[in-house]
Amino acid sequence: MSIKIKSITGPPSPEELSNRLEKVRKLMKQQELDYYISFNPVNIYYLTNFAFYVHERPFILIIEKDQLPKMLIPRLEKGHFESRARCELDFVVYYEFPARPGDNWYDYYQKQIRSNGKVGIESELPIGIVNKTPGEIIVSDIIDEARIIKTDYEIGRIYHACRVVNKGHKVLLKRCRPKVLEFALYKEVTDAMTSKIVQDIPNANFRATETTGAVWPPSISHDPHLIPHIFAPMEEGGPHVSIVSARVDGYGVEIERSFFLGHVPEKTVRPFEVMFEARALAYSMLKPGIIMSNVDKAVRNFITEKGYGDYIIHRTGHGLGITGHEAPFLAEGYDRILEKNMVISVEPGVYIPGLGGFRHSDTVLITETGYQKFTKAPEALEDLTIPV
Amino acid sequence: MSIKIKSITGPPSPEELSNRLEKVRKLMKQQELDYYISFNPVNIYYLTNFAFYVHERPFILIIEKDQLPKMLIPRLEKGHFESRARCELDFVVYYEFPARPGDNWYDYYQKQIRSNGKVGIESELPIGIVNKTPGEIIVSDIIDEARIIKTDYEIGRIYHACRVVNKGHKVLLKRCRPKVLEFALYKEVTDAMTSKIVQDIPNANFRATETTGAVWPPSISHDPHLIPHIFAPMEEGGPHVSIVSARVDGYGVEIERSFFLGHVPEKTVRPFEVMFEARALAYSMLKPGIIMSNVDKAVRNFITEKGYGDYIIHRTGHGLGITGHEAPFLAEGYDRILEKNMVISVEPGVYIPGLGGFRHSDTVLITETGYQKFTKAPEALEDLTIPV
Repeated sequence: MSIKIKSITGPPSPEELSNRLEKVRKLMKQQELDYYISFNPVNIYYLTNFAFYVHERPFILIIEKDQLPKMLIPRLEKGHFESRARCELDFVVYYEFPARPGDNWYDYYQKQIRSNGKVGIESELPIGIVNKTPGEIIVSDIIDEARIIKTDYEIGRIYHACRVVNKGHKVLLKRCRPKVLEFALYKEVTDAMTSKIVQDIPNANFRATETTGAVWPPSISHDPHLIPHIFAPMEEGGPHVSIVSARVDGYGVEIERSFFLGHVPEKTVRPFEVMFEARALAYSMLKPGIIMSNVDKAVRNFITEKGYGDYIIHRTGHGLGITGHEAPFLAEGYDRILEKNMVISVEPGVYIPGLGGFRHSDTVLITETGYQKFTKAPEALEDLTIPV
Repeated sequence: MSIKIKSITGPPSPEELSNRLEKVRKLMKQQELDYYISFNPVNIYYLTNFAFYVHERPFILIIEKDQLPKMLIPRLEKGHFESRARCELDFVVYYEFPARPGDNWYDYYQKQIRSNGKVGIESELPIGIVNKTPGEIIVSDIIDEARIIKTDYEIGRIYHACRVVNKGHKVLLKRCRPKVLEFALYKEVTDAMTSKIVQDIPNANFRATETTGAVWPPSISHDPHLIPHIFAPMEEGGPHVSIVSARVDGYGVEIERSFFLGHVPEKTVRPFEVMFEARALAYSMLKPGIIMSNVDKAVRNFITEKGYGDYIIHRTGHGLGITGHEAPFLAEGYDRILEKNMVISVEPGVYIPGLGGFRHSDTVLITETGYQKFTKAPEALEDLTIPV
């Protein structure tokens, strides 16, 4: 049963951001932390709406129990920060990196934290910053944890981002014909998505936006992380495997398909069917309460029973949100329970050298009673066999 | 005196990479390290020619004294790694993240390092990986150190990358007219650069390639790290400030100019001249042997004497190489000596709210006797006043 989702394109309200901060503060309280330090640009974006990339001038968010969060930033970035941030906070501004002795970022940073404080940090925090951090250090990824269950606002943004990749994938299937070059497809697909993004979100933040549209032609589709040559030609037959992904003004999604141009080589029919059925099995298990690793196990067992166990080379799915790749995971060893308002990819794959790759991926919301697929493209073999 | 530089577009030879590794090994020996651990994708690229971005599946390069380096990678990336790496090494392959107990990346990682070993790590290494690293840990950025002095091969690649941004900047000045939108300029400039890149390097690695072309129109050019609105129109007058930068198949460079459309507002003439003279002063000091912070100090003193000291908001320059922003720095607090075969930007700036930003930046090689500018575009006020 499909629920009605509202597509959202506007920036988060201050209330949305303060609710996210409250989730983090609640986790801080549970772990009796006096401070939490965030350096991961994605986590800082989640709490502030400010996007940046990490370079030699550090940006650090300092969340103190019962106080307004503080943002440590270089002088040069203050205007930029203020133009994008949508939450209330104090600034700690340092001049430049490098700087004169006594005037470096860490001189300012260390003054913000009591040496007897209990300080939570991300497991991604670089050791160079950990070593400058006063207090008792506790590694605990509480912002990553807060991000796992999406708010209604996030779901609306992810839904919109899926419309963008749906459009990109439609263009891809329309343009992909034998002899068309990878580079031409990439340009057409990403241009189409970029046009939609700037039309829908004229003030989109391009620090938090990127688009990819590519096809793994049959000769390399068995190796899903190989990067296709930019002048690789599309081929007659298949399986080709498409990847259309985007981070749309801060929200990351993907859609992927195995498809054929002109004809379906006989030997590829069965592995396609096995992937297709494995995928149906995964979907049939998706609802709140199931242990996520069990979905992966069931998929593996099914594919193995069908004789293709040696050709499984990755987990069944991963989370998406303000990135296109994050917790939670449909994977062995990830024994957390699936919950309402998680967003995940579902993409069991079979990869046979000499034959090709068989994988569909969609961006999927977990609902109260099951799931809702946000991405849309043909799925069945006959619908993915394109006449040429 | 200009020296003849050969533009290089091919991938590094195995010898080039083994020479780089030798530089690192020499520093390991000086510091009596048994191992060096690299996680920074830029440093791994430097030593292997394999480019990737950091996500939840770690990639770790383990360099052991007197042994072939080992690359810890997820199963899914082995083919990709082999398609790009140009050096000899051993693999340590883990299956997936997350994984079953006993089969996680760190189970494999920890077996590679003796617990009584002395282990050098990058200051950027995430604490979550530091905490899984056996041995006595020493934070020491020796690959970053090795990268500071460029090899002849790197210089040839950087020279080629500068040709790409020179072309982009030429297109930018040709197309930039009042009322033209930011987005249109961005597309034309980046398309021109991308076309040149794929023409010159048909096998370019797009994981290590990106292009930017943007203009800060006069209303925001005083704030150089603000991101212009994608539909911002160019304006009559100035100063506009251009940024054209690229990472061309692994080599990052930039060119930037303050320029005017149609006319030069009277009040902007003096700050332009002050910037222009400060820049000439910086160049006049560039040769091996000078302390880098002294260049920054001289520039600051000069601009301050001219009455614009309050409008300096950043250092005079930064290094470039396999990234567009790295050590060494022309900055206060950076008291290292300038050396032959460093590559730096020279970009003293003056930023006056209500009036605009005044900054030229070029990518510059330090030579035996002085310097050589690799980027080329008009520099003088009259040449940067474009008739409309």
